Amino acid sequence: MVADVILCAPQVVTCAPGNAPRPGSQMGQLGVVAQGAVAISQGTIVKVGPQSEVLAHYQGPRRYHPGCLVPGLVDPHSHPLFGGSRVHEFQMRAQGATYQEIHAAGGGIWSTVQATRQASEAQLKDSTAQRLRRMLAHGTTTAEVKSGYGLSTAEELRHLGVYQQLKEELPMQLVLTFMGAHAVPQEFAGRQSDFVDLVVDEMVPAVAAQGFAQFGDVFCEQGAFTLEESRRVLLACREHGLRLRIHAEEFTHLGGARMAAELGALSADHLQFLPPEDFAALRQAGTIPVMTAGTSFFLGMSQFAPARGLIEANLPLAIGSDFNAGSCLSESMQMALSLAVLKLGLSPEEAILAATVNSAHSLGLGQQVGSLEAGKRADVLALDLQDVREWPYHYGVNLVEAVYCKGVRLG
Amino acid sequence: MVADVILCAPQVVTCAPGNAPRPGSQMGQLGVVAQGAVAISQGTIVKVGPQSEVLAHYQGPRRYHPGCLVPGLVDPHSHPLFGGSRVHEFQMRAQGATYQEIHAAGGGIWSTVQATRQASEAQLKDSTAQRLRRMLAHGTTTAEVKSGYGLSTAEELRHLGVYQQLKEELPMQLVLTFMGAHAVPQEFAGRQSDFVDLVVDEMVPAVAAQGFAQFGDVFCEQGAFTLEESRRVLLACREHGLRLRIHAEEFTHLGGARMAAELGALSADHLQFLPPEDFAALRQAGTIPVMTAGTSFFLGMSQFAPARGLIEANLPLAIGSDFNAGSCLSESMQMALSLAVLKLGLSPEEAILAATVNSAHSLGLGQQVGSLEAGKRADVLALDLQDVREWPYHYGVNLVEAVYCKGVRLG
Repeated sequence: MVADVILCAPQVVTCAPGNAPRPGSQMGQLGVVAQGAVAISQGTIVKVGPQSEVLAHYQGPRRYHPGCLVPGLVDPHSHPLFGGSRVHEFQMRAQGATYQEIHAAGGGIWSTVQATRQASEAQLKDSTAQRLRRMLAHGTTTAEVKSGYGLSTAEELRHLGVYQQLKEELPMQLVLTFMGAHAVPQEFAGRQSDFVDLVVDEMVPAVAAQGFAQFGDVFCEQGAFTLEESRRVLLACREHGLRLRIHAEEFTHLGGARMAAELGALSADHLQFLPPEDFAALRQAGTIPVMTAGTSFFLGMSQFAPARGLIEANLPLAIGSDFNAGSCLSESMQMALSLAVLKLGLSPEEAILAATVNSAHSLGLGQQVGSLEAGKRADVLALDLQDVREWPYHYGVNLVEAVYCKGVRLG
Repeated sequence: MVADVILCAPQVVTCAPGNAPRPGSQMGQLGVVAQGAVAISQGTIVKVGPQSEVLAHYQGPRRYHPGCLVPGLVDPHSHPLFGGSRVHEFQMRAQGATYQEIHAAGGGIWSTVQATRQASEAQLKDSTAQRLRRMLAHGTTTAEVKSGYGLSTAEELRHLGVYQQLKEELPMQLVLTFMGAHAVPQEFAGRQSDFVDLVVDEMVPAVAAQGFAQFGDVFCEQGAFTLEESRRVLLACREHGLRLRIHAEEFTHLGGARMAAELGALSADHLQFLPPEDFAALRQAGTIPVMTAGTSFFLGMSQFAPARGLIEANLPLAIGSDFNAGSCLSESMQMALSLAVLKLGLSPEEAILAATVNSAHSLGLGQQVGSLEAGKRADVLALDLQDVREWPYHYGVNLVEAVYCKGVRLG
């Protein structure tokens, strides 16, 4: 048979099987094929295996890479659309202010909301495209991207519209999430429940009618939305056909993760303060815990999510960049891999599966991306590494030598 | 007058004046020129200033960059020549072993020495070249590079010879440091003073006769070399015309930094356990403290060097990558910038001066590199950033859009 291209390398890391989330006890096996090949036809992987086997079945142009081939990284949690800069808060934090204190002083998310509202659509599209291209250059071929710096119906729709344009124009795969309940805007100060009404009664139906977002999300946290408010938002999203995710237990334990699991959320994210007694609810619901070690690192928090406990409880862990304007300014899922090992205690193998198979399943895309297997989208990275276990170990640099999206090499 | 090329950008960050180390109280001023230009002739900067002024004096081809122009980064501390991989130690550390315990168990530096001795010259040259190119791609245009994974006279000379070949072949500037007293090799177990004799009596004269190394260094630490042994090594280096640096106070306080200052060392490096009473000795001697936050971060240490105390004591701080096989596997000085802010409490401005002007002076190259000023080597980076203060803030990604070495754009 004929393939459009056959990628060959000394080490092909399949991450197979990827058809189901990989539970903690099975996150140690990456599926490495020595002297392997990946045959691609019409943007889809048609065969993976030893070169001798693949080349016996497929003919076509071959590209030899000297290092490892791995699945494109899947980032299940990012906020790349924003205006302005919060570099001054970095200095405030260096001088001892906490993220919550900055937020209470009118900084934090609110300052980004103001700058984002003032930016033109062209400005937002340009700056967001630049960030998405940087994600792609660092190996992220599928990314979940959230709104939530608009906080009015018109702005949230505008931001989702920008994402939709970029989804159509860029080679990477984007999954859009509506997060109108990211913070309470200042025009609703003292009238928080009115804002929740606005989200539930106006924003969610409008977003559903627009048809771009696939997920709904909410920030369930002290200083953001209560457990009951978060439940109202998620229920409204679900009624309007959106699948669910949640920001929960990031600075305190309010029970948002357990509540989201009961509502059938695909993921519960952050979880620095998730107690062991909430693990079972996630496991029973199939809600995937998404760790964002970059946020704890960037905010200088000593508390990281209980990743090892979750793995020992046999949950399938995923990791995300949490790339955003203020609490984690890094597009790189490679950095997330390193932090997962250094700060969450994952092994290199566990970290890589958390950033591929499991993050894909947390987006409902586990049948399409996250592993190198016949039938999956041909999103493949070539790494400048002889041994893929060095990937998280070798930190702070871009080790991606080539990115293939749907079988097409970029750049 | 005619320039070979005139680089133009909305923000030119000169880091001037760079002719002397910048003391702590003056590390807040970067020297930013809005709508600036850098005129270059024969590899040297001939004029820097507002575009109107530079273009009034110089004609020549112009290159417009959309972000910031900054001096090439100067890495004053790296160990990029090594064989093998220590990825397995990463896992041991994740399971609770300390760096010193791994070292005592025959891992650590010793395992790298074995792998390095076994590697052919071609293998060492290839792998080191790949790492140096990665440093360069991430913005390091001048790097100090140490031997010290050989630990025999023949091996140390062989490694310095590989560095010398790369120095002649690569566009970046390399400064070679002999560090035969990096660890006691196993063939000298129980005979540590015999090994120090070998370093002093045989290695140092041979290295001096070879003529490639400009500096001598020693690891003054529990489990490595005592204060007195370190003094012997440094004195021998000085007698043979090498300038001095030291690895000191990394895991314990032995007094190596103070001792090295008394011997006129240009830098004292690591310093996690440097007490305030040793600050004055460094200041009086003009010995520049070099912080390596990456090592503390990578080893999971809670102790970082007393950077703010040193700045308040008005010392000129420098930062380095400490890129090496086991305790800090990152080539990126951009990562060092981020860690300097996040973990050492430096402001973005202080971090940038520490990685340019002050690191250049710690290598005795302060008149040649480290700032964008007439007469300096035309090592310039173009960054994908509107505001240079975002550079350390925006972490874990490569924000270098273009690298110029001696005025020639790479890649």
